[in-house]
Amino acid sequence: MMRFPKNQGRWVVIEGRGTGQPTDLTDVRSANLAVVLRHVRTHTPCSRADIAAHTGLNKATVSSLVTELLDRRLLRETGPAGNRIGRPASLLTLQGRPFAAVGIEVGADHLAAVAVDLTGERVLSWRRAFPGLGASAGRAESAVAALAGRVAAKLTADRRRILGLTVAVPGAVTAEGAVRFAPHLGWSDLDLRPALTRVLRHPDYEIAVENDADLAAVAEHRSGPQAGAPDLIVLLGGAGVGAGVIAGGRLVRGDRGLAGQVGHLQLDPAGPLCRCGRHGCLEAYAGLPALVRAALPDTLADGPITDYAPELDRMVAQAGAGDPVAMRALAEAGRRLGHAVSVLSDLLDPRAIVLGGTFAALAPWLLPAVEAEMKGRALVSAADSSTADGQVRASTLEPGAVAAGGAALALERLESGYLPGK
Amino acid sequence: MMRFPKNQGRWVVIEGRGTGQPTDLTDVRSANLAVVLRHVRTHTPCSRADIAAHTGLNKATVSSLVTELLDRRLLRETGPAGNRIGRPASLLTLQGRPFAAVGIEVGADHLAAVAVDLTGERVLSWRRAFPGLGASAGRAESAVAALAGRVAAKLTADRRRILGLTVAVPGAVTAEGAVRFAPHLGWSDLDLRPALTRVLRHPDYEIAVENDADLAAVAEHRSGPQAGAPDLIVLLGGAGVGAGVIAGGRLVRGDRGLAGQVGHLQLDPAGPLCRCGRHGCLEAYAGLPALVRAALPDTLADGPITDYAPELDRMVAQAGAGDPVAMRALAEAGRRLGHAVSVLSDLLDPRAIVLGGTFAALAPWLLPAVEAEMKGRALVSAADSSTADGQVRASTLEPGAVAAGGAALALERLESGYLPGK
Repeated sequence: MMRFPKNQGRWVVIEGRGTGQPTDLTDVRSANLAVVLRHVRTHTPCSRADIAAHTGLNKATVSSLVTELLDRRLLRETGPAGNRIGRPASLLTLQGRPFAAVGIEVGADHLAAVAVDLTGERVLSWRRAFPGLGASAGRAESAVAALAGRVAAKLTADRRRILGLTVAVPGAVTAEGAVRFAPHLGWSDLDLRPALTRVLRHPDYEIAVENDADLAAVAEHRSGPQAGAPDLIVLLGGAGVGAGVIAGGRLVRGDRGLAGQVGHLQLDPAGPLCRCGRHGCLEAYAGLPALVRAALPDTLADGPITDYAPELDRMVAQAGAGDPVAMRALAEAGRRLGHAVSVLSDLLDPRAIVLGGTFAALAPWLLPAVEAEMKGRALVSAADSSTADGQVRASTLEPGAVAAGGAALALERLESGYLPGK
Repeated sequence: MMRFPKNQGRWVVIEGRGTGQPTDLTDVRSANLAVVLRHVRTHTPCSRADIAAHTGLNKATVSSLVTELLDRRLLRETGPAGNRIGRPASLLTLQGRPFAAVGIEVGADHLAAVAVDLTGERVLSWRRAFPGLGASAGRAESAVAALAGRVAAKLTADRRRILGLTVAVPGAVTAEGAVRFAPHLGWSDLDLRPALTRVLRHPDYEIAVENDADLAAVAEHRSGPQAGAPDLIVLLGGAGVGAGVIAGGRLVRGDRGLAGQVGHLQLDPAGPLCRCGRHGCLEAYAGLPALVRAALPDTLADGPITDYAPELDRMVAQAGAGDPVAMRALAEAGRRLGHAVSVLSDLLDPRAIVLGGTFAALAPWLLPAVEAEMKGRALVSAADSSTADGQVRASTLEPGAVAAGGAALALERLESGYLPGK
């Protein structure tokens, strides 16, 4: 087994070679086991010869690695490949059955849980209402832990071994898994990871707490249409707006784990007042409360909104029916979103920027305005307009993408060389 | 030797472990040689036992690795460590003498060349005037190549072997070393790296072309006060403004190598007209032409500025003498710079943001306004003001930091496992 990194509470999306750490022979074997696992996942089904040809590992090494992975029940054989001369090569695929990884999303108005098997197939998908903003720290911890406990019990009853659990929070999460602040949940300085570990009685799987937009980015990087693209950004819409940034194949976390705060990017100092006290922040144009105010002005009479799902459905229905107020509001939000997308694009030059969460649901009305605004702004598109097309798109992973990203993060660990003990 | 990455024209600042590629025994040895080199550089002088204790490599392995590095003349012994009982351990340090790495900076009005030895010590530092904006593509290539050739001849005459040459350009540079656009030089789509390789007659060292702010970030990451900090940003002032971003110990390049474009970050749509046709871009407040216009209004009468160095000197002199116009102009620029710094800070959560280039020279008048503006803006500082202090500072590496960063990038290659052939 490879050494664990110092910070065990966070998992890293890794690609490419790093050489900053000394390496020994067990590391080499772990690294190569991970390379084989990754190859089988991305080229399933494939033969031992295919693996050797693509990875550059020699055939005897591949054979030995595959034997170990079969033995660990991470791979399985699917029978011989047809149409070959000589002894038929048996094909390999990931062993879905015995393992599962779990992601739990904490939203302003709901909790969602997704479990996937090793192949990424969903084996469980639950959703329940949750008064995020109303819940005290203690109640929030209990609610998340209770859901995690029920998911774990269900998976265990199904005779699956849990590889890891990741909780997604719409806020700033430190490297230690503490929620520094999550304004739309009313949380600050909540030591969520240690609390969950305690309440779940120190399970033998890893528990992590991560920012929701970061996990949306992991989900896109693992299974979206641009899976594997080294540079990818997700703009996740909800009560607030967050960004998940993958650069050079790795999640950008920042020094304190607080990267990706884009909600208070000020687009116009003369713009509408934002909750933060300044004017013209992205959130003041494209956060759900702002969208509801502009697109469904009659809703204001009903008092403060605690459950956004019905309002989002109404917005989609109104815009779909061609309601001019809703359409105008979404076009204006899209224009502002396009401005923010241009800023991210100039700074980080991603291959794609994916609109997730509420933005994905509203994409048919937001995207044309986003694209028009970008065309006028992007510096690179000015020099070469051909590259700007298709750079922004709506997520096709919704719903549950954030929770699925949490589960995917636990799977990524395998391909970073952290195999479960036998 | 480790395999070269597919793209040989770009070097990567690497830290931490990556496992996306298969590994074999020669890779392991290269990786471990690099680990020893890095340890000696950051803990010089040190003994074999120190290296073993700190890296986790066993003593016999360290001994063998050190013997090879002595043999390759990358390390040397400095004599026994004092105050020890038993056989005195000999101490190791980097062998400065036989190697050199070169960086060349192309500025709007000058070329600068810096060569460093293996220890990072400057062995050459040249500067000459260069009409960047006036030079045609052919003349620009010839001028850079001529300077590179003279530097190489000098180093060869000094019996130094060149490890690599990096050319820094204030513009967008592709992964292949082509300058996509560099508006302040009047360049676009200039295939600089292939041209230099040709003119320098395919030398046995690597030639790279990089964005200047990226190299300023490499320089800070390697030898600034926050050296080694995994998350670091440099805002490089000049005719334009660029950002060099290091995240998770690696330079963020983006999908096409165009990351770090911050000059046209729009801070206020109602702000002054920018060259790009929009209003209120960072460059329209803090680029040198804007600074000169605001701080030295009488200069305008002299016609367009082609050489900024005297104007910068005058600005420093005026502000230093307490001239109210200059001080007010710099405070306003600092305020806008603080706004941009806040945006970068929220998005990328770096440990430090370093002001380089002209901003470093003007820091005494810019920084107070930058810090005041940040204090009012940064989200994280709102939650915990203690972390915001000292987050922004002026570079102490000036002048020549960009060229030195180019040289440092060539040295980084060694610590990524690419040792020079014997």
